[in-house]
Amino acid sequence: MAEQGYALGIDLGATTVKAGVVSRAGEIVARAERATEPEKGPAGVAENIALAGRDALRAAGLELSDLDGVGVGTPGICNVDEGVVVSSGNLNFKNVPLAALVRERLGVPVRLENDANCAGLGEQWCGAARGHDDVILYTLGTGVGGALILGGRIYGGATGWAGELGHICIDPDGPECTCGLKGCLEAVASATAMARAAREVVAAGRSPAMARLASEQGGRLDARVVITAARGGDPEAQQILRKAGEYLGLVSAMLVSALNPELIVIGGGASHGGEFLMEPMRQMIARHAMPGPASVVKVVQASLGNDAGLIGAATLVWR
Amino acid sequence: MAEQGYALGIDLGATTVKAGVVSRAGEIVARAERATEPEKGPAGVAENIALAGRDALRAAGLELSDLDGVGVGTPGICNVDEGVVVSSGNLNFKNVPLAALVRERLGVPVRLENDANCAGLGEQWCGAARGHDDVILYTLGTGVGGALILGGRIYGGATGWAGELGHICIDPDGPECTCGLKGCLEAVASATAMARAAREVVAAGRSPAMARLASEQGGRLDARVVITAARGGDPEAQQILRKAGEYLGLVSAMLVSALNPELIVIGGGASHGGEFLMEPMRQMIARHAMPGPASVVKVVQASLGNDAGLIGAATLVWR
Repeated sequence: MAEQGYALGIDLGATTVKAGVVSRAGEIVARAERATEPEKGPAGVAENIALAGRDALRAAGLELSDLDGVGVGTPGICNVDEGVVVSSGNLNFKNVPLAALVRERLGVPVRLENDANCAGLGEQWCGAARGHDDVILYTLGTGVGGALILGGRIYGGATGWAGELGHICIDPDGPECTCGLKGCLEAVASATAMARAAREVVAAGRSPAMARLASEQGGRLDARVVITAARGGDPEAQQILRKAGEYLGLVSAMLVSALNPELIVIGGGASHGGEFLMEPMRQMIARHAMPGPASVVKVVQASLGNDAGLIGAATLVWR
Repeated sequence: MAEQGYALGIDLGATTVKAGVVSRAGEIVARAERATEPEKGPAGVAENIALAGRDALRAAGLELSDLDGVGVGTPGICNVDEGVVVSSGNLNFKNVPLAALVRERLGVPVRLENDANCAGLGEQWCGAARGHDDVILYTLGTGVGGALILGGRIYGGATGWAGELGHICIDPDGPECTCGLKGCLEAVASATAMARAAREVVAAGRSPAMARLASEQGGRLDARVVITAARGGDPEAQQILRKAGEYLGLVSAMLVSALNPELIVIGGGASHGGEFLMEPMRQMIARHAMPGPASVVKVVQASLGNDAGLIGAATLVWR
């Protein structure tokens, strides 16, 4: 079959399905969104994916027959070869043949992959990791997601769990994590962890700057407040980002020694902490990773923002 | 060219070149050894490799024309594609085109790979990791070597350093390592580290059993003494192995969360500590790795002993 040159990329979240028609050049030519409604179960979610996809196609002035296929980025652990979501707490999915459910509704080939892995693929295709084959990506959001691109391909490990970098234990005596373990990277370096640290600092009266910024947005003290305050020169906010960066750097130092990557990319909302996060990361890598691989690796910020997952999902079609 | 069914495997150490003629079935049909003599420089080492290889061939009653090629496992960092030893402290090599130097002398194709990676390939081909595609291997000797088999292949990373698991920093405030960093796995879990711990225990008069075993071999208090004493019930010796196993387990927990391997194999002389090492490894993985991948991975002892590197080197010819 001749290549049509368009794919539908789906970024499936627990709240919203984002669909985008993506060209072979990596451009999003049209978008649409629908509610995910995980409470309607796998068939309901697949229906919403199909509806969002048809909306995006319509907005692009295209038909299903113009598509080479659909790529879905989903939370949770995937069996990529079989198109099955093995487990996803966010969606309440367990062994759901999501690719088949979407295919039934749209009649074109459907592939799926973990959402953080899709973000990695997107950044590698046309973002900060373009042209690099050995890349570690962190996604700093509510949790900490991760992706390993090794030898040019997403590495999923024996059963699809590889790249779950947020659950690397960095402090065995550290705070509890959502996964039940203690001291996971996610528990100390996610946007959630940053916000928790900020609330402690503000409660202790140590950061009028963050207190003011939070009150300006109705009392919501989130990672954005920390980042804005840090940029404005607040030392407590800078210290929160530095601490998160040091934890990211310690985990990265180990991964640099083990995997010898060319590039470490940080994405997700909290990555806007930028140099306040990346400089301590580089310092920890220089101090604790093996000198050979440490001299090779670069730490950079992701460049596709919220579109990385959607664009990366589209690339699944052409791989 | 028709396949001859034999390869020459070379296990190149700083002291000794071991050569073996290996059949396509993984059997070593003949062996030979020569001194490495690194002081003679790259050409001298290549000459000794060639001499050991010819000796082994003669012992097998075969000719060079019976070989499909030569595989060399070497200490240090390799550019596998170009057959170059990029750097090896033990051999005092820097950018040595070793494959070409050996090929000049033997006239058959020569491939090379890091020695710990060869041990991994050997175990995967016909040892403890047979049939597994996602494997982490530690080699516990004077140092701690490592190999990552990911998706069925040795993973070398961006510049050939991947799998140097001995230099993962596990305790930033720990003892100094030969590499200049602090608290590397090698500094706390190698045979050398075990022997150092044993000397402290014996000097403090806390282990008559290890003191006696050491005096029986002329005062040499090495990891073998620790393992023998542990098997004999000496609690101090068991504690030394347990501590090393816990460090191996902590590093493994992180690698299990990051890489989701099927199997972790421990090889090298000190791996004869067996369950005294592996049981604490399993405990640390259960406690500190993500539950999903932790439930999948198994920890086992290597099965090819000192032959793993030689057999693995031979497989380079047929890959």
